[in-house]
Amino acid sequence: MPNSKPQKLKINEVGTRDGLQNEPIFVDTDDKIALVDELSGLGYAKIEVTSFTSPSAIPALRDAEVVMHRIQRMPGVVYTALIPNVRGGDRALECGVDEFNLVMSASETHNLANLRMTRSQSLTQLADVVRLAHNAQVPVNISLSCVFGCPMEGEVSESEVINLVGKFAELGAVGVTLCDTTGMAYPTQVTQVCEAVLKAYPGLNVTGHFHNTRGMGLTNVLAALQAGVTQFDMSLGGIGGCPYAPGASGNVATEDVVHMLNCMGYDTGLQIEGLIAAAHHLEALIGHDLPAQVSRSGPRLTRHDPPAGFEEIRERAWNREQSKGQI
Amino acid sequence: MPNSKPQKLKINEVGTRDGLQNEPIFVDTDDKIALVDELSGLGYAKIEVTSFTSPSAIPALRDAEVVMHRIQRMPGVVYTALIPNVRGGDRALECGVDEFNLVMSASETHNLANLRMTRSQSLTQLADVVRLAHNAQVPVNISLSCVFGCPMEGEVSESEVINLVGKFAELGAVGVTLCDTTGMAYPTQVTQVCEAVLKAYPGLNVTGHFHNTRGMGLTNVLAALQAGVTQFDMSLGGIGGCPYAPGASGNVATEDVVHMLNCMGYDTGLQIEGLIAAAHHLEALIGHDLPAQVSRSGPRLTRHDPPAGFEEIRERAWNREQSKGQI
Repeated sequence: MPNSKPQKLKINEVGTRDGLQNEPIFVDTDDKIALVDELSGLGYAKIEVTSFTSPSAIPALRDAEVVMHRIQRMPGVVYTALIPNVRGGDRALECGVDEFNLVMSASETHNLANLRMTRSQSLTQLADVVRLAHNAQVPVNISLSCVFGCPMEGEVSESEVINLVGKFAELGAVGVTLCDTTGMAYPTQVTQVCEAVLKAYPGLNVTGHFHNTRGMGLTNVLAALQAGVTQFDMSLGGIGGCPYAPGASGNVATEDVVHMLNCMGYDTGLQIEGLIAAAHHLEALIGHDLPAQVSRSGPRLTRHDPPAGFEEIRERAWNREQSKGQI
Repeated sequence: MPNSKPQKLKINEVGTRDGLQNEPIFVDTDDKIALVDELSGLGYAKIEVTSFTSPSAIPALRDAEVVMHRIQRMPGVVYTALIPNVRGGDRALECGVDEFNLVMSASETHNLANLRMTRSQSLTQLADVVRLAHNAQVPVNISLSCVFGCPMEGEVSESEVINLVGKFAELGAVGVTLCDTTGMAYPTQVTQVCEAVLKAYPGLNVTGHFHNTRGMGLTNVLAALQAGVTQFDMSLGGIGGCPYAPGASGNVATEDVVHMLNCMGYDTGLQIEGLIAAAHHLEALIGHDLPAQVSRSGPRLTRHDPPAGFEEIRERAWNREQSKGQI
């Protein structure tokens, strides 16, 4: 809990990558650029702008180069992108991304289903990407999927997670993102796993990445905070679904998490009003309601008018009170 | 956090009252009875069956007597109802309710807007209801609205809440429910207010009643638990909206909260499968999607099949691995 000096947290926006890649429509390149530029002014630590995957694999982000080139970089904001392989790394370096975000799964089945490789093959391939990044003096973060459970395998072993984090620590990654890809994490588990990773690799930047698939997204953020995690991924409007839970919520919504953390006295660097405005712009771009709550309800102290006829109701109540001598 | 012996929590279902009274349609009396009977078998500590308000004020619950008379009472379950005044209390006593749940607001403006009385007038009126209940040897709980904020006034003073709880403690209420009527509560505030109430009135049963209007419902349940609260109101499917936040979620959803608490090792007395089945029945009765997550996504260990072609993907990956001698 924060004391007199608010604890500083680092908030990463992943909606522009993890969110938009899951949307059925292609958001116009100019609109993507305008959205990133709007986000750049809000106070994020990091923005995951796009993904340098094959344009045929993720057509929604086929404009990665153009977006990366044309956004206005705000000093102090880290502009990262998802890099699946050396080819994607080459493309990203040409655009001058600030950081590589690599991805593989802690679950063998999920890695095969999602990346068409064994985890061992992913490690070999990603080691090449790390070398590429290091030659270019670009820091590397590894996002591990399914750390808290796999929708096909069930429980994922904590020791396997620790081992996998270790492989990337040895390779020289500066950070690891522990991803609850399909919303299977629960608070006590999150605290335990995060504590174990922080203890095993105290030099790594550990980021929490939670989904709200089962409603526990915000509780898991607080559980990770309790373990000592101070960096979090989140997605404006809560976009970014999970193919294994149709209709359920996706990533934790930036405006909901930041609203809570700001209420609690943490220093997120973000103001809720700017996030709500950006969420409404995003909603117009993707053309459907967002799972987020705060962009609908407003911040907690949003004032509402009393109902129609309130003045008369109050006057009548006061008159009754006087006539009966009630106190 | 639970140790070797799981901590026992008491779960109260309020969907049949707080939920249904906010639905635009009238749920058929037989369907209401069948729903309560289904819930009775699931392991709740308490079910708030209905409301003995004026049938013209809340037409959705105009069948209060019939429902109370015809439900099958399960031993060990407390069947409570909302009682607004002595007239409602008389009606409820005739049906043999186990407990009276009274309601007033911690906010003067909200009390006037919602109940058309000053808080002082509500106190006078409810004191009469408490006497009626005590004469009939029926215990009384008081649900205080807007404890964590008022949508019209903003912040609500903690000392006023404590004073108000004290009035009902003096009258002989056995319990108080601290209601976050419009989802304004945040975790550190919840812990602080709950601790203050528990400390001031250690003899009272304190229940937490949270709404998910701003996505913080489950975090607030955990914050109240941390303060020592072990009884919670929740609403199947998350029904029960808030007129001040159109489109936002209502009460915390029973299946979402219980799923989380069960994962964390608490003894809620409830199994998630029965709640999900009941939520689907409720959904059919009210004819619209529920805000709850777990009744859509299933419990966290719900298994999903790998995608089509998975066997071939795996075999090809294994073949590549063998031919390259990767480990």
